[in-house]
Amino acid sequence: MSGNSFGKALVLTTFGESHGVAVGGVLDGFPANLEISLAFVQDELDRRRPGGAFFSSPRPEEDKLEILSGLFEGKSTGAPIAFIVFNHQQKPSDYDHLRDVFRPSHADYSWQQKYGIRDPRGGGRSSARETLARVAGGAFAKIFLLTKNIHIKASISQIGQFQIQDDASGIDQPEIISFLEQIKAGGDTIGGVISCTITGVPAGLGEPVFDKLHADLGKAMLSINAVKGFEYGSGFNGASMRGSEHNDRFVNEKGVIKTLTNNSGGIQGGISNGADIFFRVAFKPVSTLMQDQVTVNASGDSVIFQGKGRHDVCVVPRALPIVEAMAALVMADHLIRNRGESNRVTK
Amino acid sequence: MSGNSFGKALVLTTFGESHGVAVGGVLDGFPANLEISLAFVQDELDRRRPGGAFFSSPRPEEDKLEILSGLFEGKSTGAPIAFIVFNHQQKPSDYDHLRDVFRPSHADYSWQQKYGIRDPRGGGRSSARETLARVAGGAFAKIFLLTKNIHIKASISQIGQFQIQDDASGIDQPEIISFLEQIKAGGDTIGGVISCTITGVPAGLGEPVFDKLHADLGKAMLSINAVKGFEYGSGFNGASMRGSEHNDRFVNEKGVIKTLTNNSGGIQGGISNGADIFFRVAFKPVSTLMQDQVTVNASGDSVIFQGKGRHDVCVVPRALPIVEAMAALVMADHLIRNRGESNRVTK
Amino acid sequence: MSGNSFGKALVLTTFGESHGVAVGGVLDGFPANLEISLAFVQDELDRRRPGGAFFSSPRPEEDKLEILSGLFEGKSTGAPIAFIVFNHQQKPSDYDHLRDVFRPSHADYSWQQKYGIRDPRGGGRSSARETLARVAGGAFAKIFLLTKNIHIKASISQIGQFQIQDDASGIDQPEIISFLEQIKAGGDTIGGVISCTITGVPAGLGEPVFDKLHADLGKAMLSINAVKGFEYGSGFNGASMRGSEHNDRFVNEKGVIKTLTNNSGGIQGGISNGADIFFRVAFKPVSTLMQDQVTVNASGDSVIFQGKGRHDVCVVPRALPIVEAMAALVMADHLIRNRGESNRVTK
Amino acid sequence: MSGNSFGKALVLTTFGESHGVAVGGVLDGFPANLEISLAFVQDELDRRRPGGAFFSSPRPEEDKLEILSGLFEGKSTGAPIAFIVFNHQQKPSDYDHLRDVFRPSHADYSWQQKYGIRDPRGGGRSSARETLARVAGGAFAKIFLLTKNIHIKASISQIGQFQIQDDASGIDQPEIISFLEQIKAGGDTIGGVISCTITGVPAGLGEPVFDKLHADLGKAMLSINAVKGFEYGSGFNGASMRGSEHNDRFVNEKGVIKTLTNNSGGIQGGISNGADIFFRVAFKPVSTLMQDQVTVNASGDSVIFQGKGRHDVCVVPRALPIVEAMAALVMADHLIRNRGESNRVTK
Repeated sequence: MSGNSFGKALVLTTFGESHGVAVGGVLDGFPANLEISLAFVQDELDRRRPGGAFFSSPRPEEDKLEILSGLFEGKSTGAPIAFIVFNHQQKPSDYDHLRDVFRPSHADYSWQQKYGIRDPRGGGRSSARETLARVAGGAFAKIFLLTKNIHIKASISQIGQFQIQDDASGIDQPEIISFLEQIKAGGDTIGGVISCTITGVPAGLGEPVFDKLHADLGKAMLSINAVKGFEYGSGFNGASMRGSEHNDRFVNEKGVIKTLTNNSGGIQGGISNGADIFFRVAFKPVSTLMQDQVTVNASGDSVIFQGKGRHDVCVVPRALPIVEAMAALVMADHLIRNRGESNRVTK
Repeated sequence: MSGNSFGKALVLTTFGESHGVAVGGVLDGFPANLEISLAFVQDELDRRRPGGAFFSSPRPEEDKLEILSGLFEGKSTGAPIAFIVFNHQQKPSDYDHLRDVFRPSHADYSWQQKYGIRDPRGGGRSSARETLARVAGGAFAKIFLLTKNIHIKASISQIGQFQIQDDASGIDQPEIISFLEQIKAGGDTIGGVISCTITGVPAGLGEPVFDKLHADLGKAMLSINAVKGFEYGSGFNGASMRGSEHNDRFVNEKGVIKTLTNNSGGIQGGISNGADIFFRVAFKPVSTLMQDQVTVNASGDSVIFQGKGRHDVCVVPRALPIVEAMAALVMADHLIRNRGESNRVTK
Repeated sequence: MSGNSFGKALVLTTFGESHGVAVGGVLDGFPANLEISLAFVQDELDRRRPGGAFFSSPRPEEDKLEILSGLFEGKSTGAPIAFIVFNHQQKPSDYDHLRDVFRPSHADYSWQQKYGIRDPRGGGRSSARETLARVAGGAFAKIFLLTKNIHIKASISQIGQFQIQDDASGIDQPEIISFLEQIKAGGDTIGGVISCTITGVPAGLGEPVFDKLHADLGKAMLSINAVKGFEYGSGFNGASMRGSEHNDRFVNEKGVIKTLTNNSGGIQGGISNGADIFFRVAFKPVSTLMQDQVTVNASGDSVIFQGKGRHDVCVVPRALPIVEAMAALVMADHLIRNRGESNRVTK
Repeated sequence: MSGNSFGKALVLTTFGESHGVAVGGVLDGFPANLEISLAFVQDELDRRRPGGAFFSSPRPEEDKLEILSGLFEGKSTGAPIAFIVFNHQQKPSDYDHLRDVFRPSHADYSWQQKYGIRDPRGGGRSSARETLARVAGGAFAKIFLLTKNIHIKASISQIGQFQIQDDASGIDQPEIISFLEQIKAGGDTIGGVISCTITGVPAGLGEPVFDKLHADLGKAMLSINAVKGFEYGSGFNGASMRGSEHNDRFVNEKGVIKTLTNNSGGIQGGISNGADIFFRVAFKPVSTLMQDQVTVNASGDSVIFQGKGRHDVCVVPRALPIVEAMAALVMADHLIRNRGESNRVTK
């Protein structure tokens, strides 16, 4: 059954395979009459293409977004916004070595079992290239959220075993650079954790009892390739805490009700309480290695799968705009849902 | 906008407040012609009412399930299955002290901001009593899954800082009992972690790209009261691992393709691969304390909220059947969805 | 797959069989903080129980609505509103004659083919008694619509071949009474047509391109038992008209843009234009006759099905509140949806 | 809120404006591993472009379908199938005369009231050109249905006041041709009725109580531009009939249970009964006339709108493949839904 759409009031549907004609999406339910900066949307896409120590090699190609519908003279019209990024031509023969092999910890085997067929070119639909459409859709959601002064910021908080303060100096620390160079030299990869903070959120967003705001954020994050865990507020640490230290005490600060601490992560009973929302997302190491790996093929024979091509050492830098995009889609969806049931919280 | 339904093909809608007339649910899309043991469903509800060191006091009342529709002569008919548990009478005056106060780390404040009104009796709709309907709905889902030999088992793996092997001896360890007695004596509470394993799952369940099997499991768990985090397979530990140690190597074991390790947690690319599915769920400490707490009321005045009544020291034992129920709803939903798109995996 | 819910933002889920424990519903997404007159809701239910020439005999029992959740001190709280009407006790043996027979033009055969099982007592789930829950749900929707000055009025416009002006004198005409008495005396039944007008609708409701306002109204009406057709505005007559006579000419009437005619039925391009919405709904004659009918049973044997009990001669008087209720649910759903995407039209 | 998707298990999302970059769609939930004849899909699109007496002039341009995703080596893969038809270049100035005027019986005024903005070029999103995407999506659905031997055939049964038997001679009758030439010469348009028959349908499709098979067919048809009414089986005529003549009598014909008549139109209680499904759809006359019409503009001034360009005299010939496509989407959706809940009816 269809599973390529996300959201209830604001719905993003994505399509496209890694090495098919194009990757794209349709964003339906986007508010009309908003000014759209396509340069901003393109900038968000470009954030998915960083260079540096995290990557095996720079990628020359550009992912150029094209708008197919939904805008008129620079504004949204209420019609669905469709967009695509054409894939660059590649020789089909480049992927013959992927045709029958089940790569370790990829979706090759499970997809084949489910559908009885798969597009093996570069991972097909299960490639992370699909997230291009999420970043584009999320960029539109951000444009809407900015009109309400809601801001979303993701940052790296862990690379392998290294905890990071993601300020200007964070991931440029010599020991981390050195660590990544070593991983890269071995043809290996490493996992990481991304933190995300959402500021400017009015109290009242989130729909009890199943569509709690953090439940929808969690699903959004877990739907991103390579994500293994999600926690918000005190998270897994909260399991070790006592109620007397975990409870966030309410105070009246010059007429505004606030909490002194924020173990709730800005969400209580599934509804935003006006404090900053924050959560953390765990990513596994990239499964594609520049090493030979023993695996099986579709006939069940043991084969050696050779790593080749160009792959990331660690996915988290590229995942930053993806985390933000999915968070933006959730927040915009809930803003629209809440406004529908009443205009008490949001105008 | 409506948020009280869960699932796409098999949909559970719950209703009811903690101290209203009743708590109940409607399960729509349940397969017809299955034998239903109502004793099993009632047993699942009874699992939500454990005694022992985890609780302040035993609760005398029984939660008796009544079926309103959807069964005929002991079998499901394809019509929606509706059920209720009537609440036991209580004096409305028992809740006057909750009327205007915003209890710390409860949903009182955020709910009031969202709706401008709330039912203050025992937490109203945001009470964990709502999960009765989830356990009942999940029990029906389990009955369906058992016809496919799919089994779900949750166990306690952490109480406070204590890691637990949840076998017969696990949570009966003297040091843990002693720890809980101490927490209880102080009128305090403590968090914990539940692990859950699903066995007998065929390869092929889960819908790319947004309705990945673990994304739906994650949302299901995060929608349970007091949950702060979710991880599957290697989880947050995966963030510290190298690809070469994290990748699950495929082997052909007498004609069956398996993986030697299971960092994937039984799910690859969002689709089950036939291995056991396992995940962990973090619960914060119960927010209701038997201590006085300073907070504010609806007028913004600082007030002291007195702990009284009967409350749990730790929620995880009662949450075991809830975790299993939500997992069962997700698995049954995906079985039906997958069978719709093809009968390749499941008959 | 689940099909017992209606609406996207305001969702009514119904449950219950004709002679099971109860018939009821859950209304989710209803705006919070509205004053609810339960007397009004009960009055709407009572409108389903008319007497007179249309019916074989008056029905003594009352359908008493009970609220299970969602209200507090006379107001909606934002939580799902659940309600039930308990069925009056009947001897199961009263329905033994229905157990294996496939009654002509009922759902007995098709339901059995679909599910392999059915509740034969009084038609089970396919009985028109299910519409009790629609009328109750629709009554809540009407309460919301009245706060926006939107009014819905259904009336009888045809009984058999008789066209009717449904004013005070309409269906009391001697020739129609005489006609119905004659139908009743023969143990037969007759069809009819209901017209419905919605006034006070702001321009702007309806969601292109699939959820056009009239498409959702049409589905709502066609989902009512015994409905065979739906038309709005010029309807089937429009097929015989020329564009030059069908087009509704816009004029500026003291600053308000209106149309001189209303062949559009108040909806253009699927969106309300501010004019009155009107549509017509065709009902077939009731399938249960007080005549012997030859049919087949589950074994495929030819059998005579004897009409007995108490049945309506014509369904349309009882269907008036049902038509209004379904229309109210559609309008309320679209008001909420529209308010979500912008508060341009409705506050 | 989003309204540009249709279906629950098999979902078509369409996008694009009449004179934007492209019109297209995404079909999600389509069964994997089916052979796809793109020539068949293109043929269906070409059926939307007939010539002859119904039209003002032949249209030279071709609507060429391009596949963006979801197929691999000629087969469906389970991934969403995305397709587009690029629009041919036109000068923006060609549409300046539409910019501020509200054309009679178009969506100009209601769209402007809803969104506060619209794309005026050729009707923008409300143009019938959007149905290109429906025909393409429906062609895929037909390919799936053909594997189950389900066939869908629409035909013209009325043009203006002329009833038609749509065989080879039907709409070529001299008097109809002459009538159309006369309408065309006057710059006028005329309405019509399309009938549709679906054969080979197994008993058991349709989901009580809201997603009745005919309710979903009705919504599908009413969502097509210019449709004013829908009826199935006996339809509006059924309102004049007695139960004794309307009831379809079951008989056992050599072991197969059938009905002697088919006033039910192949659907009883919202579920297919194995007989042919048939329904009728009323279309209003095309609103664009080759006549001057008095209307108002966005400033509320009275203006004369001049008919110019190239427009259809009667829409029904072009609507035939659209009616079939929407019917195919409904039938395929219900096949998949039914197969999900059990594989009793369909394998």
